[in-house]
Amino acid sequence: MSVISTADIEAAAARVRTAVVRTPLLDVSRQAGRPLLLKCENLQVTGSFKYRGATSMIAALDPEQVRAGVITYSSGNHAQAVACAARTRGIPAVVVMPHSAPAVKVAGARSYGAEVLFEGTTSTERRARAEHEAARRGLTMIPPFDHPAIIAGQATVGREIMEDAPDAARVYVPVGGGGLLAGVASAVKQARGATRVVGVEPVGAACMGSSLAAGRPLTLEATASVADGLLPVRPGDLTFAVARTRVDEMVTVEDAAIEQTVAWLCGHAKLAVEPSGAAACAAALAADHDPPAGPAVAVISGGNVALPALAAMIAGR
Amino acid sequence: MSVISTADIEAAAARVRTAVVRTPLLDVSRQAGRPLLLKCENLQVTGSFKYRGATSMIAALDPEQVRAGVITYSSGNHAQAVACAARTRGIPAVVVMPHSAPAVKVAGARSYGAEVLFEGTTSTERRARAEHEAARRGLTMIPPFDHPAIIAGQATVGREIMEDAPDAARVYVPVGGGGLLAGVASAVKQARGATRVVGVEPVGAACMGSSLAAGRPLTLEATASVADGLLPVRPGDLTFAVARTRVDEMVTVEDAAIEQTVAWLCGHAKLAVEPSGAAACAAALAADHDPPAGPAVAVISGGNVALPALAAMIAGR
Repeated sequence: MSVISTADIEAAAARVRTAVVRTPLLDVSRQAGRPLLLKCENLQVTGSFKYRGATSMIAALDPEQVRAGVITYSSGNHAQAVACAARTRGIPAVVVMPHSAPAVKVAGARSYGAEVLFEGTTSTERRARAEHEAARRGLTMIPPFDHPAIIAGQATVGREIMEDAPDAARVYVPVGGGGLLAGVASAVKQARGATRVVGVEPVGAACMGSSLAAGRPLTLEATASVADGLLPVRPGDLTFAVARTRVDEMVTVEDAAIEQTVAWLCGHAKLAVEPSGAAACAAALAADHDPPAGPAVAVISGGNVALPALAAMIAGR
Repeated sequence: MSVISTADIEAAAARVRTAVVRTPLLDVSRQAGRPLLLKCENLQVTGSFKYRGATSMIAALDPEQVRAGVITYSSGNHAQAVACAARTRGIPAVVVMPHSAPAVKVAGARSYGAEVLFEGTTSTERRARAEHEAARRGLTMIPPFDHPAIIAGQATVGREIMEDAPDAARVYVPVGGGGLLAGVASAVKQARGATRVVGVEPVGAACMGSSLAAGRPLTLEATASVADGLLPVRPGDLTFAVARTRVDEMVTVEDAAIEQTVAWLCGHAKLAVEPSGAAACAAALAADHDPPAGPAVAVISGGNVALPALAAMIAGR
């Protein structure tokens, strides 16, 4: 049975404590017309929860690994998180990005001192190049989600939620590869079994939902959504195994609802949130409003959105 | 000598404790390239610090005043704050707004259950009508800034800053009528005399700066700025008297810098901030970067900006 234990999460929490922000749990019940709290990981270092997992794994490296350095593949938040966490510990970092990576994300990784390599346009190409470079140069791979130290790091989000809202009735979590979901579900269920954990995917990228329904990890032919952080075509083996035993429910949200929620969060919660970061809140706002045993919590997973794109989503509201 | 004493602030803090959010002090030093913390009053109930002062004064009313109800005049954040604070305590509230008030602000005040009256287009007309109605109907006036209970409520912002950042070198505060400045300066100086308090006004609305320079409250002929919350033409008598003994420095910022900072806060701090709320941060980012004894703190006073206006400010960045 695959589990991230209480001890794993406690150890990760101790490793990340001095580096990560204990993000606020913001009460937007008045604005939402129902009991709703937002866990604001858009206010985390590097603008997303990914900094927790990257810090958790990098802080656990041994001295030889530290000397050699780390590598990852990502075009998004994980790349910036690894670059920043590595620099904070004084470790060299390499990031493999697609040739098509937006200039702003390349600049983001470089601003944290990472060496950027370009390879192909697909995740498979990036990963293969990163594994090749890791072997050739003796670098430690910091994978985007499917590793116990990454999941335990993301679990600290759930740990803080249950400390700050021990009576939470439901916790809504956005799902890409499943690292945040597996971590938060582990922490929540260890704190209180009665709190329901709900995974949220875009309609066009429901790899975890279909995999859980099938009873095994499925690879989707393609995914598409405005939520560019939730596009993996397959959940991780470990994240899938954890989700299978810890997650109560999976739901999907339409892109239109995600964009509408980006605008709602800007206007009513005063937060700049990327589409992936708004998905869980979209699901929470759309859920049936039965009298709950306690408040719902939505994890706002990140805020890294280009300003022109954000402007376009909020301009017409 | 006009002072807001430690006992006044402690009493206000006790009155507002269960109602207001203890807003986060967000570290944006990495993004700013200098030690800088943001006191996020845009995340306060009703979207601005005004809720503290309104709650402080309304919570101190006697039973007869409570039965009769309250009244105020404002087209902005103070109106919503009074309406919400009154409803929270179950008190009837009347708000006098200009005929030209934007529909969204009228709807905002009404959404908190306030009775809205319309009068003229200037602050003078609104105030006269409100005073007339207060006398006629026996309502208690909740003024926007020039009252000890209002200032003591706003002072709780400064009290929290000094609890969370006791080594702050400078605290930047936006200034309209001076309620926030007088309150924060009182709390900061009581906590630590060496922390410098800097008041920030738009170039086109520097009523406090010119009054302090003249040694008496001056009335400007007109004010103009994108920061629509900082437009009073004259500081309060009490806020002026407090500022005179507690504020170290006054600075001005251009509208262009304010708008640029709105975009910076959205992109780098992941916060939706109104122009008035960005003014102090604009000044902090523009200040000479001498090695400080501790971090600078900028008070982000509010986040109530219409989404199309916010979109226009961030779209081209």
